[in-house]
Amino acid sequence: MSRQNQKALVLLSGGQDSTTCLHWAIREFGRDAVTAISFDYGQRHRIELECAAAVAEDAGVAHVCLPIDTFNALGGDALTESAIEVEGAIDDRTGLPNTFVPGRNLVFLTYAAAYAWQRDVPNLVTGVAQTDYSGYPDCREETIKALQQALRLGMESEVTIHTPLMHLSKKETVELARDLGALDAMALTHTCYNGTRPPCGQCPACRLRAKGFEEAGVSDPLVADV
Amino acid sequence: MSRQNQKALVLLSGGQDSTTCLHWAIREFGRDAVTAISFDYGQRHRIELECAAAVAEDAGVAHVCLPIDTFNALGGDALTESAIEVEGAIDDRTGLPNTFVPGRNLVFLTYAAAYAWQRDVPNLVTGVAQTDYSGYPDCREETIKALQQALRLGMESEVTIHTPLMHLSKKETVELARDLGALDAMALTHTCYNGTRPPCGQCPACRLRAKGFEEAGVSDPLVADV
Repeated sequence: MSRQNQKALVLLSGGQDSTTCLHWAIREFGRDAVTAISFDYGQRHRIELECAAAVAEDAGVAHVCLPIDTFNALGGDALTESAIEVEGAIDDRTGLPNTFVPGRNLVFLTYAAAYAWQRDVPNLVTGVAQTDYSGYPDCREETIKALQQALRLGMESEVTIHTPLMHLSKKETVELARDLGALDAMALTHTCYNGTRPPCGQCPACRLRAKGFEEAGVSDPLVADV
Repeated sequence: MSRQNQKALVLLSGGQDSTTCLHWAIREFGRDAVTAISFDYGQRHRIELECAAAVAEDAGVAHVCLPIDTFNALGGDALTESAIEVEGAIDDRTGLPNTFVPGRNLVFLTYAAAYAWQRDVPNLVTGVAQTDYSGYPDCREETIKALQQALRLGMESEVTIHTPLMHLSKKETVELARDLGALDAMALTHTCYNGTRPPCGQCPACRLRAKGFEEAGVSDPLVADV
């Protein structure tokens, strides 16, 4: 059954994955039915939000940016506290990279779902994936399914959380972007944990991105453009 | 097994139910282990936050108030938009009173869970109940259980969402407050949808509260004090 013209809200961070999801959503639902949403939670690298705005504009979709001023109050992590060096260091407590903010994706998705409900939007799209990543528990399929269930029950809605990248490797994500005609848009995205442009090429996020493009046999326009 | 000294975070709106829950948590976990959290989401009646602060101070527990500045961006409802008259009007779309903000409890609980995680707090306490209420879907036990599952999976935590009022009638909630020695604290709470003090006595919230006290054979110190 065609999903064309069903309204969809895409969580857009301005990174490679959410940008790919935005273009996936445009194909699935139609450009006019898609809105992108970003959260300004005091992220260390403001460039993320600039990239999100540029990606949405380039794609020709509406873009909403909601501030969540108090996100920093939740506590320290390397993506919001400038004092912490980002080296992909492992947090003692979680055994995960110090870029993991427990609950962040859940807050964003819940917030987006509440926003979508008010606007009669039955589809959410997020770029989480459980493959090739660092084992973030809030990116796993069973987490997303449980949250979808909580949202459906709690809002008496039929909201669906789409996760087109859930089972794709980074290589396959690049191939999907290519198939969607979204490779040029990758020049507008931001990935580097160190927030540099050109990307540092050394941090875990840069290395993962480079590996994906290399394995897909595609040159990364973000790097090529520099 | 005693839960004394296990840390707990109580969602405190400043109303009768959350105040009862705060005193329940103090009994269960011990006063020093309990923190109360409130959300400043631009609620129409600022008196709610003043009551929450007063209730926490009276109970001798720490109180945190987190602003969620953008909550109003989620869309219209009678508790955040002054322009809407509160008469317990029924929303055409939800069939629920216009005081229902779909997703609000889910956002608050998710936010509180993220806050709690950062502070090693394994217990959340909320005053939602599925009895005697207006059928709010985010107050139902199955919703809370689904959200707890999503939070556990998404944060790899053992968080427990306690809902001591879930199956209590308003009468039984008043009796619980009495048994907890928390009746005096009820004079500090706020219930009225119209935000008046003394309470209007006419809105659905005032009437529900009055019915509970009457059936329990207890006089409401909020009304008695006026």
